[in-house]
Amino acid sequence: MADVARRAGVSMATASRALSNHPHVAAATRARVLAAAEQLSYVVSPEASRLAGGATGRVAVVVPHISRWFFATLLEGIESVLRDADLDVLLYHVGDAADRRDFFQRLPARRKADAVVVLGMPVRDGERERLETMGVHIVAAGGQVEAYPYVSIDDASAARQAVDHLLFLNHRRIGMIATVDPAEPHWPANPGRSRAYDEALADAGLPADPSLVVTVPWGSLHGADAMARLLSLREPPTAVYAHSDEVAFGAVRTLRRAGLRIPEDMSVVGIDDHPMAELADLTTVAQPVRDQGVLAGRMLLSLLAGETATTGVTVPTRLVVRGSTAPPRR
Amino acid sequence: MADVARRAGVSMATASRALSNHPHVAAATRARVLAAAEQLSYVVSPEASRLAGGATGRVAVVVPHISRWFFATLLEGIESVLRDADLDVLLYHVGDAADRRDFFQRLPARRKADAVVVLGMPVRDGERERLETMGVHIVAAGGQVEAYPYVSIDDASAARQAVDHLLFLNHRRIGMIATVDPAEPHWPANPGRSRAYDEALADAGLPADPSLVVTVPWGSLHGADAMARLLSLREPPTAVYAHSDEVAFGAVRTLRRAGLRIPEDMSVVGIDDHPMAELADLTTVAQPVRDQGVLAGRMLLSLLAGETATTGVTVPTRLVVRGSTAPPRR
Repeated sequence: MADVARRAGVSMATASRALSNHPHVAAATRARVLAAAEQLSYVVSPEASRLAGGATGRVAVVVPHISRWFFATLLEGIESVLRDADLDVLLYHVGDAADRRDFFQRLPARRKADAVVVLGMPVRDGERERLETMGVHIVAAGGQVEAYPYVSIDDASAARQAVDHLLFLNHRRIGMIATVDPAEPHWPANPGRSRAYDEALADAGLPADPSLVVTVPWGSLHGADAMARLLSLREPPTAVYAHSDEVAFGAVRTLRRAGLRIPEDMSVVGIDDHPMAELADLTTVAQPVRDQGVLAGRMLLSLLAGETATTGVTVPTRLVVRGSTAPPRR
Repeated sequence: MADVARRAGVSMATASRALSNHPHVAAATRARVLAAAEQLSYVVSPEASRLAGGATGRVAVVVPHISRWFFATLLEGIESVLRDADLDVLLYHVGDAADRRDFFQRLPARRKADAVVVLGMPVRDGERERLETMGVHIVAAGGQVEAYPYVSIDDASAARQAVDHLLFLNHRRIGMIATVDPAEPHWPANPGRSRAYDEALADAGLPADPSLVVTVPWGSLHGADAMARLLSLREPPTAVYAHSDEVAFGAVRTLRRAGLRIPEDMSVVGIDDHPMAELADLTTVAQPVRDQGVLAGRMLLSLLAGETATTGVTVPTRLVVRGSTAPPRR
């Protein structure tokens, strides 16, 4: 490698990066290095180049929330795989918009990690460009990030399972409690989970009624408020589909306080199969959260081993029928 | 430092620890090292010793659970402080007994971090000795680890607040749902939270009745089972104190299923003020979880800056009275 670098007139680091197809090496430089390598019959071993390139043995995991069940469970899944592979996890929390700007501006993980995992958050174009300047593999889990290999559920299909269940039970007036991320309140409510509701109603020949859709920040207490708004309608729904179980728990509290019975007076369905959903006897669409972290970790190990990435893995969701849904009485 | 260690007849690590006022250096050893240092006119500069030790800019955070709210919230607190100080977080999950043995045996964080934070778990003697061979500062959060500077609640005092509340309401037959860690089922149920129950009853002149104490692995569904066992007694309690809110949620489910009213037929009190406790209208003893992580982070920054450590900080807990407790009807 030293001979190659000398002959090409570049540093060892540049020669190494050029030979390992590292992005962000100028084309002319790369050509000069490759020519020198050919003249010297230098053989590139991916394993050796990884070692020579100074693999850090660390993976940066970027999360928008740590204490929320979904994100913590994804993190637990990915940590288990990386630990088994003797890779260390560097944890970066990008909470609110300011944190986030700062993270993508400073890129604190740069040169400290062999790869980046983005957990449960969309990545905007400008952010993507910044991430890519790190020149390492990037994988997403718990959300479709089209630009990178990802592991995710199909949000639209999960939502469709929830709403189709209510339609099958013969509900015709179905409310939706949609959620936005409190840290990013100006982003649209989960588009897949909202769109599927519109489509399912349209497919069933039901009119769209905007008064049946309430959008709130994520969280159980907001779910309670949203349910109160639906109960304040002249003609409330007979069933409610919530974007997540945690929001559905809040809706259930409001119904109980109002003296309404579940499912006799109102059906409620969520998405996730949160650990409390079984306890609350909540019908929901289950997603395998820990598994998404595990699969993303394995995907990352393949990439680090030089294998070609699949573009994305969609894990299946399934309806779990419990006691919170039944046909409408009226 | 090598000269000091040689003259004192100890290892470099011991000499370093003695000079940095690290706890757990025998007084005689410390005196010998200090004498050697004086003879050699060795000047200890905390900053230099940190640099000489090769500051990594990283802190290892060791957690027994990631996806459980309490641990994830502690982690979120400590991460925020370390991030603001431009320190990276290396996350290590020690789950079951095998993980745990492996972690303390291999010490994967050794030479990779400037300090170790142990979150919400007791550290046994043998484990402590292993940790200390890392030769870095150690701080504990979310649990009293007497050997290290810690931030914690006083478990006995929190438990006492819960049980005294039930006694004040005039309950005389009070059950306890005690919990053990499912990953460490052979460890005793949280000793502080159990002992305070015994003491409160004794102080109130009530006899100890072992049939009123049910011990289960941590978790809501286990709490549901435990409540069923209390309901199977010939004379069930009129109130139940649960070691944690998540366990209390399970107890509430069983009571509901049995058609019993809360608080009219049975009072329930937990500990934690879990985010769902407000929603469930559960009386509880609140502890500031995120703050414990934040305070531990600040404590660590002081130690890294060469300041002397306080031995421990106990954060206060407070009773939050909601709708799940009332005087007994009978």
